[in-house]
Amino acid sequence: MRPVDSIAALGRARTAASPASRLLRGLACAAALGAGAARAAEGVPAALVDDLVAANHILADQGVVDGFGHVSVRHPGDPNRFLMSRSLAPALVKPDDIMEFDLDGNALDARGRAVFLERFIHGEIYRARGDVQAVVHSHSPAVIPFGITGAPLRAAYHIAAFLAGGVPVFDIRQAAGATDMLVRDPALGRALAATLGAGPVALMRGHGDVVVGSTIPMAVFRAVYTEVNARVQGQAMALGGPVTYLDAAESEKADKALDQIHLRAWDLWKRKAAEAR
Amino acid sequence: MRPVDSIAALGRARTAASPASRLLRGLACAAALGAGAARAAEGVPAALVDDLVAANHILADQGVVDGFGHVSVRHPGDPNRFLMSRSLAPALVKPDDIMEFDLDGNALDARGRAVFLERFIHGEIYRARGDVQAVVHSHSPAVIPFGITGAPLRAAYHIAAFLAGGVPVFDIRQAAGATDMLVRDPALGRALAATLGAGPVALMRGHGDVVVGSTIPMAVFRAVYTEVNARVQGQAMALGGPVTYLDAAESEKADKALDQIHLRAWDLWKRKAAEAR
Amino acid sequence: MRPVDSIAALGRARTAASPASRLLRGLACAAALGAGAARAAEGVPAALVDDLVAANHILADQGVVDGFGHVSVRHPGDPNRFLMSRSLAPALVKPDDIMEFDLDGNALDARGRAVFLERFIHGEIYRARGDVQAVVHSHSPAVIPFGITGAPLRAAYHIAAFLAGGVPVFDIRQAAGATDMLVRDPALGRALAATLGAGPVALMRGHGDVVVGSTIPMAVFRAVYTEVNARVQGQAMALGGPVTYLDAAESEKADKALDQIHLRAWDLWKRKAAEAR
Amino acid sequence: MRPVDSIAALGRARTAASPASRLLRGLACAAALGAGAARAAEGVPAALVDDLVAANHILADQGVVDGFGHVSVRHPGDPNRFLMSRSLAPALVKPDDIMEFDLDGNALDARGRAVFLERFIHGEIYRARGDVQAVVHSHSPAVIPFGITGAPLRAAYHIAAFLAGGVPVFDIRQAAGATDMLVRDPALGRALAATLGAGPVALMRGHGDVVVGSTIPMAVFRAVYTEVNARVQGQAMALGGPVTYLDAAESEKADKALDQIHLRAWDLWKRKAAEAR
Repeated sequence: MRPVDSIAALGRARTAASPASRLLRGLACAAALGAGAARAAEGVPAALVDDLVAANHILADQGVVDGFGHVSVRHPGDPNRFLMSRSLAPALVKPDDIMEFDLDGNALDARGRAVFLERFIHGEIYRARGDVQAVVHSHSPAVIPFGITGAPLRAAYHIAAFLAGGVPVFDIRQAAGATDMLVRDPALGRALAATLGAGPVALMRGHGDVVVGSTIPMAVFRAVYTEVNARVQGQAMALGGPVTYLDAAESEKADKALDQIHLRAWDLWKRKAAEAR
Repeated sequence: MRPVDSIAALGRARTAASPASRLLRGLACAAALGAGAARAAEGVPAALVDDLVAANHILADQGVVDGFGHVSVRHPGDPNRFLMSRSLAPALVKPDDIMEFDLDGNALDARGRAVFLERFIHGEIYRARGDVQAVVHSHSPAVIPFGITGAPLRAAYHIAAFLAGGVPVFDIRQAAGATDMLVRDPALGRALAATLGAGPVALMRGHGDVVVGSTIPMAVFRAVYTEVNARVQGQAMALGGPVTYLDAAESEKADKALDQIHLRAWDLWKRKAAEAR
Repeated sequence: MRPVDSIAALGRARTAASPASRLLRGLACAAALGAGAARAAEGVPAALVDDLVAANHILADQGVVDGFGHVSVRHPGDPNRFLMSRSLAPALVKPDDIMEFDLDGNALDARGRAVFLERFIHGEIYRARGDVQAVVHSHSPAVIPFGITGAPLRAAYHIAAFLAGGVPVFDIRQAAGATDMLVRDPALGRALAATLGAGPVALMRGHGDVVVGSTIPMAVFRAVYTEVNARVQGQAMALGGPVTYLDAAESEKADKALDQIHLRAWDLWKRKAAEAR
Repeated sequence: MRPVDSIAALGRARTAASPASRLLRGLACAAALGAGAARAAEGVPAALVDDLVAANHILADQGVVDGFGHVSVRHPGDPNRFLMSRSLAPALVKPDDIMEFDLDGNALDARGRAVFLERFIHGEIYRARGDVQAVVHSHSPAVIPFGITGAPLRAAYHIAAFLAGGVPVFDIRQAAGATDMLVRDPALGRALAATLGAGPVALMRGHGDVVVGSTIPMAVFRAVYTEVNARVQGQAMALGGPVTYLDAAESEKADKALDQIHLRAWDLWKRKAAEAR
């Protein structure tokens, strides 16, 4: 965990941005985006904002999110900030809806835009996990049953090999007693991040799940196939008898292969999302 | 029960309308809607008719209704009247199809338009429940199984927290013996309203369900997530072993949070419904 | 059963057509349809051909048929003939694809068009059932499981009340030993019609089902809700414990109500099918 | 196994092509396709490339493939070569993406295009099975459960009669110990081909399946209905009690009937795929 103690510290971090990030910032300012979009995404390449918007649309198109759920990316020029849309259904997100937050969940340039109650999920995971660059939170419908029963989510096929290390379940009741189930403050965010540990996915009891990745496409890929795998596993369990899941050695190797091939799905999804809009 | 004894009584009720409702009526008359629409929605803001039409389309788009089902709203200027489309598949409803009814289910200005056999569901619930402003009746497909088995519908996740108080099942056989299953008179409507009690949802055995809310968006939200929760709960039960549902304290808090966030889904659905037409 | 012994008998039947049917024939010839369409639908009102084409599209849109399946209507001017498309996926059927058959399954004006191998399903049901005016045969996917297990298909809700009289299963193996499962001759058609008896639906083991009605909209309505009810019933059974189905008295009454309301669904489906093409 | 030792050997094989194949090649060169497309499909009728592109789109439209999966056809002029798209999501494949491979999986004219890691599935099946002209590999979602449980996939209805001979499961762990689950070399391809044997379908444990046919439409037809049958069979098993599948005599006859009727589905799917693009 690398806490950021104050807004002032964040200011210093911004001043200390690398030459590369300063260059990127300049490019973004010069881009043909509207002034609002440029401000919302200060120092962020337009292509990254474009991917973040696409991620919102893809997650909706693939049935991972409905009117709820959110996806964020760590700021490429400042590890203590992240980018996420204002409070809005993911299918409707446009570049100008992207806002910048610090890891405490403070909006840096709100301009009156409403923010997600659960932005602390993102901030605290970025704080705890230096390797994570993108976070998806959803009420992925086929996944919820695995969070409210004793049935562990496992890797039914190689495309979901990333699940094989075990998928922990975050029970907010154990962390904080009776709540409204929402991760609505930093402490709950930290508790969730602690349950996630070093893994790619954590289920949230009676709520949904959180999925992380080293890039936006990887986090989206994992979120989609966590949902698909949940459907496949549920059907396999319904056939009766023992189910053979990927074993540890297979999963480790298969997961590496996903690094090579996951962009094939991302390219398809991004194209389809653009065509549908 | 506050019966309206005659059309004349209704005329008096209209005369007694508040200044605000008279103003609204004037606005509606001046609106660019066709004369038919203006008459159908006398004294009703165009935005409310628009929301009621959208509710019809949303419920179809979300798979809650098919060719059957209906949604109504209490008249904003007269608590003893409600608005609902003529007998028509919800996906096809347009502003001019909206009719006005008294709580006994009499159409106030039918002009030859056919009415739903089960309009008594709406009238009797509005009569019994002063807090209810909108009612949805559907054959929500994933919900029907819970009405014909002993399995109680429960809140599998926070978005369906409103189910946690318990979902009663109305068995028309117990109320009236052998029927055609339709709530086709005031007495059956009253029996259904009695089963609903003070809750948001009642299942109807061998038929479907009824869902209420304090606004159109809230009733639609609950209808959609009653269906989604039924799918999720069925899948959780199929995994075997005990299922952990939201407990009473969690549900109460989570339900309050829905007041804040449900419009995010409504905004998405309404936009999508408009784009699809 | 009213057998037609020969083509000559059919010729006589045609000569004996009523004045009304002769008038209709004249109207059809004068219609703006192409000559092929006029010939294919001799003596048939254009509106009936239009409904038959719509029925094909609706059954595809509603997931009752895929590339396979067919729907027919009895000739309005000659009870010993019926109308059905040439061998073609239902979604692709156009007015000019409609052909005329006698009850033995002979095409009266083939003009080189390929015919369905299983046209005998239609001819033999029309022969055995004077009350039937329309027949649907499909591989309705949620229905097939009920034809290959001991689980009887029953009315889970009032919209499927027509199922409550019991749904027989036709096992072609018992009728004819080892076959290719196709009802490809009159004898098999008669055996299927015998299993159907006086009911609205018969399942076909390892194959699909056949559904009949007194009109095209009623047969299509029953075919769609046989599929929907099968899905609902399967889910109810999966919840465990006893399921309460409509009882005999309820079903009889509810089925009568469908006479009143089924056109609401038909109007929706026909509109949607037209918009999609 | 008939290995092709070098590009030179392939050159000889090409020289030895039949007059018919030389003619086809000439036609293809004269075709109105871009130079890239002509080169990619040297000696291949444009109609075959068109069918292969359509097969990619159909498999995506029917839910057999998602971002992953591939379909190939044996080269009509040289049995030691096959055609398949570059590494790309099937829904996005265009004629210019079609590449030519030898049976060892070497691209004959890569021009920098990325190739599928698992092209060895195709090469080794073409080598082992002279009767096979088309191969589909997918992660067909309803089929995966049958590959990871002891439940054998069987013919629930006549359209899937081709499954009745038994569907073997290829467990890569038994062939090669701990792998990344991918058939990424000729030896693994040969092991899979050996499991397939003389049949039409083999499941791949924790991965998906492979389906073959004597034409592109037949392989696609079998791939689609393997998926549909898996859904139907899973639902039948869930109803409880014994399931009656097609027996051996029925299946053999029903499978022959598919030769006659499968193009009805292909024509529909190809039309829909073209309309959607």
